Amino acid sequence: MTIPELSATLDRSACERLDRDDDLRAFRDEFILPPETIYLDGNSLGARTKGAAERAQEVIADEWGTGLIRSWNTAGWFDLPAKLGEKVAGIVGGETGSTVVTDTTSINLFKAASAALKMQSAAAPERRIILTQRENFPSDIYMLQGLAEQLDDGYEVRLVDDEEVTAGFPNSMTDEVALVVLTHVNYRTGRLFDMETTTSAIHAGGAMVIWDLCHSAGALEIDLAGSGADMAIGCTYKFLNGGPGSPAFIWVSEELQNGFSQPLSGWWSHAKPFEMSPDYAPAEGIRRYLTGTQGIVSMSVAELGLDIANGVDMATVRQKSLALSDLFIDLVETRLAEHPIEVVTPREHAHRGSQVSITHPEGFAVMSTLIERGIIGDYREPSVLRFGLTPLYIGFTEVWDTVEALRDILDNRLWDAPQHQVRGAVT
Amino acid sequence: MTIPELSATLDRSACERLDRDDDLRAFRDEFILPPETIYLDGNSLGARTKGAAERAQEVIADEWGTGLIRSWNTAGWFDLPAKLGEKVAGIVGGETGSTVVTDTTSINLFKAASAALKMQSAAAPERRIILTQRENFPSDIYMLQGLAEQLDDGYEVRLVDDEEVTAGFPNSMTDEVALVVLTHVNYRTGRLFDMETTTSAIHAGGAMVIWDLCHSAGALEIDLAGSGADMAIGCTYKFLNGGPGSPAFIWVSEELQNGFSQPLSGWWSHAKPFEMSPDYAPAEGIRRYLTGTQGIVSMSVAELGLDIANGVDMATVRQKSLALSDLFIDLVETRLAEHPIEVVTPREHAHRGSQVSITHPEGFAVMSTLIERGIIGDYREPSVLRFGLTPLYIGFTEVWDTVEALRDILDNRLWDAPQHQVRGAVT
Repeated sequence: MTIPELSATLDRSACERLDRDDDLRAFRDEFILPPETIYLDGNSLGARTKGAAERAQEVIADEWGTGLIRSWNTAGWFDLPAKLGEKVAGIVGGETGSTVVTDTTSINLFKAASAALKMQSAAAPERRIILTQRENFPSDIYMLQGLAEQLDDGYEVRLVDDEEVTAGFPNSMTDEVALVVLTHVNYRTGRLFDMETTTSAIHAGGAMVIWDLCHSAGALEIDLAGSGADMAIGCTYKFLNGGPGSPAFIWVSEELQNGFSQPLSGWWSHAKPFEMSPDYAPAEGIRRYLTGTQGIVSMSVAELGLDIANGVDMATVRQKSLALSDLFIDLVETRLAEHPIEVVTPREHAHRGSQVSITHPEGFAVMSTLIERGIIGDYREPSVLRFGLTPLYIGFTEVWDTVEALRDILDNRLWDAPQHQVRGAVT
Repeated sequence: MTIPELSATLDRSACERLDRDDDLRAFRDEFILPPETIYLDGNSLGARTKGAAERAQEVIADEWGTGLIRSWNTAGWFDLPAKLGEKVAGIVGGETGSTVVTDTTSINLFKAASAALKMQSAAAPERRIILTQRENFPSDIYMLQGLAEQLDDGYEVRLVDDEEVTAGFPNSMTDEVALVVLTHVNYRTGRLFDMETTTSAIHAGGAMVIWDLCHSAGALEIDLAGSGADMAIGCTYKFLNGGPGSPAFIWVSEELQNGFSQPLSGWWSHAKPFEMSPDYAPAEGIRRYLTGTQGIVSMSVAELGLDIANGVDMATVRQKSLALSDLFIDLVETRLAEHPIEVVTPREHAHRGSQVSITHPEGFAVMSTLIERGIIGDYREPSVLRFGLTPLYIGFTEVWDTVEALRDILDNRLWDAPQHQVRGAVT
């Protein structure tokens, strides 16, 4: 699915043809989106899955209401983290028995980073530096800072620019670096980092790597095991459509799994949780990444999104995603050429995630005007309008209509109204 | 509500009269319980609240489905931890702006214990011992062990017997003790610890205290602020009926709040989370106890249980709870007298939570037989049958019927069948 000579020949009806020919078109029926809405924020919160309300009803009425306490066993609640973990593994290239769904991304990063630093501390105690992107999602940076401060053992979090990462850490990789924590896709710009070559560069430097897949899982092909990565974390509520704040995941390579030791060692990670022993002993395998009792309604609803992602060929998703973003970028550059817009998402497919980010000096007001029209993207300081492209429920015509709406708003300065300047919290 | 000369005069019709006169009887309609079931495991997982399925439907269809990303603001998702925290505060005697609902009990204990040890380390660096009950819920012990190991700074977790706690720590409180972490009610025996005198004894010894209210919040009167406690944590899915695995809470005294510093410093705890700064700065007030994005469906459903508990006079709940357990204990002792049963729950009201635990050599098989009859308690090693008494939906007749069923099972050795000996995971 490529779009030949986009700007020269393309019009709305050509986009409609592309949608008709779209192999993924049937997947739109797996989601329920409001009418008159173009939803381009699936990179922040994925859309409602078709069976979500029914699944919640089933959990609440049958499993909780009727099964009551017995449902921890009979409805498989206790096994949901591992069951859903298998489904995530199928999407991100993890091996069987390598992944669980639990807690939040931030908590899982704390577990993974703690475990990694402990391993490094035993093998190479002089390594005390943690590298991460300055533009990693801030929560990751804050968690690493919190961990380093708590360890109080000379650990230091150093921030590097994206270019330093893509160049293979020429200025930052020293024999003091213990761990590198990297977002797979820059949440603001949409830049994608190559997992395999980056992992190799980090390992060559003697450091370990944790990948944050929040902005890539479900949007593109990921081969965690094949890339040689050490650990990974990510959320299920963006491109995996798990629902608001649905639980996160953590993956650990087979090689490291049994050496994984984490401080959030709650009873769900115990070898024999129901023996109620006062002595901690970690479970063998993936249960040792767990901590405490999980929110079963949110977790159960999340499974539907994972099932959808597991049922689709991720190569096809990626192909359509790139076609959508190619189209978006091309239309912005040709049809909005006279406006002070800059495309900040990389043009090279190899460096592009599943979103297009553009800047405009009045970005906030422009996005506010667009949202008022039912075209939902979001805004990130400074000046960035983000448009997430979720191939399972977004089509080419919607990209066309979005850029046309932008053109109308910019050509006619429709953003320049008082109500579009009011800043609230934009998530 | 006292039961005069219980065993002498009481029969089932007297229990029915007690139920008719019960001031809390109307609250039973706030829950949906399956027919032909006596549910005595509300101390482990509370019952289904009446509006839970509708609330989940609303969150999924309207807030997620239609509101989409906008609901973080328009539906108040981002404010749910603080909003629900206020409701918990109203139940456990916390001040306004002292409590949030977030994460799991284990995670919140990690935050609270980390913060407390950091405070103590600054004030009294020679204090390196953490005391907790040997029979505290094991996850609390494991989390403390995980924290002590991670800090790797001479910290040690010491386990003490319940008697040592009730006696005011005569043998364990030294000037090396930094922190005491106590369950308010022993999950196995149902023993209640006096919060005020125990807190005073701990403070007199120069240590700080964290109370775990998992087995008391919603079951009895708690006055956290009045007791002088430092911090508290607890779950919402037992006596607070929040739903399976619903999120936990954390309370910090007003005095300590602004000194509270925790390592799980994710973006939800940041002073300005949407500025996406790479530098962490904790929020003023309770938001600094937060970490990452919360499961909104589970959290929203939990609110209903909190609303019920907030709408009832906790003194009335406590009075009925004690009347129910008085009756239970009395009936066991009079009507099951010839069987090898021991009541392990304390007789003194001041030392009793909202459950009755008894032992029988064949406890597992007896409970299995009882559950098969639709009377749901649970079993804990070794030999303990637990019966949770939730005054909002359990009546006196159900206590009568339970003991009569036990009598039938024991008199006729109905437990002695192969199917009752099969041990699975019992939660």
